[in-house]
Amino acid sequence: MSSLHGFSFIAGSLSNGNTGSFQAISPIDLATLPGDFKTASEAEVHLAMEAAHQAFSTFRATDGETRACLLESIADEIEALGTDLIDRARLESGLPEPRLLGERGRTCGQLRMFAAQARTHAWQDARIETAIPDRAPIPKPDLRRHLTPRGPVVVFGASNFPLAFSVAGGDTASALATGNPVVVKAHEAHPGTSELVAAAIAKAIAALDLPAGIFSMLQGSGRAIGLPLVKHPRTRAVGFTGSLAAGRALFDAAASRPDPIPVFAEMGSLNPIVVLASALEEKAAEIANQIAASITQGVGQFCTKPGIILIADCPEAATFRTTLAAAIQTAAPGTMLHQGISKTYQQGSSAMAAHPSLTTLARSESPATGCQGAALVVEASARDVLTDESLRHEVFGPFAMLVTVSGNGEVAEILHTLGGQLTASVFADPTDTTLPVLLDTLAESAGRVIINGVPTGVEVCSSMQHGGPWPASTDSRFTAVGSAALLRFVRPVSYQNIPDALLPESLQNANPLNINRQVNGTLTNRAV
Amino acid sequence: MSSLHGFSFIAGSLSNGNTGSFQAISPIDLATLPGDFKTASEAEVHLAMEAAHQAFSTFRATDGETRACLLESIADEIEALGTDLIDRARLESGLPEPRLLGERGRTCGQLRMFAAQARTHAWQDARIETAIPDRAPIPKPDLRRHLTPRGPVVVFGASNFPLAFSVAGGDTASALATGNPVVVKAHEAHPGTSELVAAAIAKAIAALDLPAGIFSMLQGSGRAIGLPLVKHPRTRAVGFTGSLAAGRALFDAAASRPDPIPVFAEMGSLNPIVVLASALEEKAAEIANQIAASITQGVGQFCTKPGIILIADCPEAATFRTTLAAAIQTAAPGTMLHQGISKTYQQGSSAMAAHPSLTTLARSESPATGCQGAALVVEASARDVLTDESLRHEVFGPFAMLVTVSGNGEVAEILHTLGGQLTASVFADPTDTTLPVLLDTLAESAGRVIINGVPTGVEVCSSMQHGGPWPASTDSRFTAVGSAALLRFVRPVSYQNIPDALLPESLQNANPLNINRQVNGTLTNRAV
Repeated sequence: MSSLHGFSFIAGSLSNGNTGSFQAISPIDLATLPGDFKTASEAEVHLAMEAAHQAFSTFRATDGETRACLLESIADEIEALGTDLIDRARLESGLPEPRLLGERGRTCGQLRMFAAQARTHAWQDARIETAIPDRAPIPKPDLRRHLTPRGPVVVFGASNFPLAFSVAGGDTASALATGNPVVVKAHEAHPGTSELVAAAIAKAIAALDLPAGIFSMLQGSGRAIGLPLVKHPRTRAVGFTGSLAAGRALFDAAASRPDPIPVFAEMGSLNPIVVLASALEEKAAEIANQIAASITQGVGQFCTKPGIILIADCPEAATFRTTLAAAIQTAAPGTMLHQGISKTYQQGSSAMAAHPSLTTLARSESPATGCQGAALVVEASARDVLTDESLRHEVFGPFAMLVTVSGNGEVAEILHTLGGQLTASVFADPTDTTLPVLLDTLAESAGRVIINGVPTGVEVCSSMQHGGPWPASTDSRFTAVGSAALLRFVRPVSYQNIPDALLPESLQNANPLNINRQVNGTLTNRAV
Repeated sequence: MSSLHGFSFIAGSLSNGNTGSFQAISPIDLATLPGDFKTASEAEVHLAMEAAHQAFSTFRATDGETRACLLESIADEIEALGTDLIDRARLESGLPEPRLLGERGRTCGQLRMFAAQARTHAWQDARIETAIPDRAPIPKPDLRRHLTPRGPVVVFGASNFPLAFSVAGGDTASALATGNPVVVKAHEAHPGTSELVAAAIAKAIAALDLPAGIFSMLQGSGRAIGLPLVKHPRTRAVGFTGSLAAGRALFDAAASRPDPIPVFAEMGSLNPIVVLASALEEKAAEIANQIAASITQGVGQFCTKPGIILIADCPEAATFRTTLAAAIQTAAPGTMLHQGISKTYQQGSSAMAAHPSLTTLARSESPATGCQGAALVVEASARDVLTDESLRHEVFGPFAMLVTVSGNGEVAEILHTLGGQLTASVFADPTDTTLPVLLDTLAESAGRVIINGVPTGVEVCSSMQHGGPWPASTDSRFTAVGSAALLRFVRPVSYQNIPDALLPESLQNANPLNINRQVNGTLTNRAV
């Protein structure tokens, strides 16, 4: 591997804030990894944001083809990093190589999906209503509206997807696709991975001769530069994936600005799974194994990990319980993403294990060492969940709570108490007559509703909704995953009575971009 | 006119908070109008919000046809109020009868436009991606996504549109169209108008046998019940039109909730107009008269009233200035909406007239009496506008500031300093070579860009964007006017692997609603 320089990237240049440095610690063996990473300063935040602002007027005027080429080049450059990237990401995150290969595929797939969107301009939702000069009592003007970029977007890299939701992840890709400059705050757990990917992005930008200011990446701690990034006057939107506490802090900072800006923070959730008697009667053991695998997959470090299982009180529940317990007991502890997450998981799971209202159903038989997390499933009564707020917190890692419920009325009561969720799932016989009402209840709580499946595994497509009512995300009207993610970073502009030659191409009569447009109420790609 | 009872409407029942009462004062002659209006209490806020919550599960399950019938019935009932409504609105708002007849037409037009949208379900943006069970490395699930209502919406009636942005205005219509219960805080300047319209809505709901809780209307002051409405745990979104100070207070309250909710506040703007030399050379006088009419129309009480005119330094500017001054001098003072607005305008315009950096270009020759507002146009230097923040505040009423600029560079500098706008206009010869860059600058600042026209007159259509960067509105991604207004109150839900019979109708294979859907990337109304 070529050596890592450790600098931040500001508009194509390497930068050192001269405020100290830090090293990456591998969660695998706590070894200090090569690379001395320069902690970014508030002055560098300012430089990056000003460069983004300066670059915006040029970048917003680029066409979809140019942005598509940029995103595709970034994907190519990331792939060209080869094993260097995978090796470093493995050492920094503890994630196994197959997972990282898959995640690189997803990352490049996202970049190419947003490239395709940039190319078609369909996201601009162009609408044209032609003038009616002789309308009474007043003439109708010519009005044309499309979506445009908002301006510089600050992206916080997430630790649990060091590629797919980090420097060149879904937030960056969707912001760039729509013409917004991006400033990334790299996650301090994987600074080397971040540097490699940032270099790939900078290389793609330079090769295409685009303004360097459309991308910067700052190394350092969220505590030092997170709030300055959100509060900077040039910042126009924020994308974040992480904890409720951190997401709330960013949201509050953005809301209290002189000019508040939108923050899309995806803050995790309990992802309740309801298991009805009609499902247990058929395949209690199979479902238990499926859920156990979802709890422990990736050491439980997915935002869609099921954290609470509501199970019907029926004879077959015993089989479910026994099978789940056995699967959890045999689950090997896995290396968690970094020392902080591992420590928080130790504390959170220990507190649950020691909670007087809870009993332990099962835990990994092998003890966890170093930064490992050991699976744990506890049992709680419905009453305790309803009355004790401390039982309703997400424990990030391979932990879940099993709750026996007396019926769907109690399920609804618990779901309402839990608040908003990314996902809500139910296992049931599809002919179960209680399903229609229950599905409505699930849809009220969550962004995604699943039958007879687990919530982990988030498909990147146009029908995905990854974002739910608070506290799952800060704004349930948007999604962090899938093609609709770019709607977070755009806004409509209407043009009234503008001569054709002066209109943006997407709104010109001849339809030079050959896109589908709403013209006087009808969707068409014809010229006006 | 039948007598007014003065009660609030809570879920179909009349309610008295027993916390006092107030009367409407006519701005025309300061006469106390009939009707003793009961000030709503916090207990009534709670009752209304709980009723809305209770009604939500039924209302969200209604189909588009039902909601369309509701909105059309409300329009019919409002029209059936006849001259009673127009007379009362005239007395309460001081607005002349022709304007109110037009506004009633707009109100009912909006209700019927949203009814048509409810009927077609197009707003649900249904997207279907069918499963690929044999995809490697993992199967692709069946995913279907559509937009659904968020839940109870609190609407604050606006004083400047006592019909079109009040009890049955655009916010209420767009929220009901999408299946959200509505609780209106009536504006205290027109409680009688509000009561009449609320009765029309309640009558329509009862006739259709819909849950009464989908609509409540509370009388009283924003100071007493505004924040309790925004902070209530059942409130899921807020629509507001009014001042920056009030909008900011509501936004801050919503953002600081344990579970923040979106507030769409449309808070007015300066609506800059740029007049280039190329336009002045051709028709300086005509443009001056057009702008004067826009400043004084409706006594300047539109959120799109032009508040600042940036004019090129050229010989023909003298003609523009003389003509504008003459038009302002002969503009008769008009009755403003209520004592509060009139007083605020007196103070604001007097402060501008007395400001040492400003000179008065012209004022209405006839003095204002009672609640009247007299037109005033002052002149400022570009330097003063750039350096003195007190010159950049909106003065709500027939006031504008004329600023001579040295070129488009200075225009851009001023626009950036002014912040976000609902609209930005330019008068120019369409072949003016400086226009393309200038239009980009205008589009960066505003939600709507206009050439050779004034900003007043907001067309209600699908291409309208009424909402711009802060401080014009709290979230420039949404609009308060036009069919897209309903996107403020909905959120996406994805369904994964749900059996066809259990899916919402909009997502079922057979397409029983016969709507256009994105099916595996192609827009079609065919069955899957």
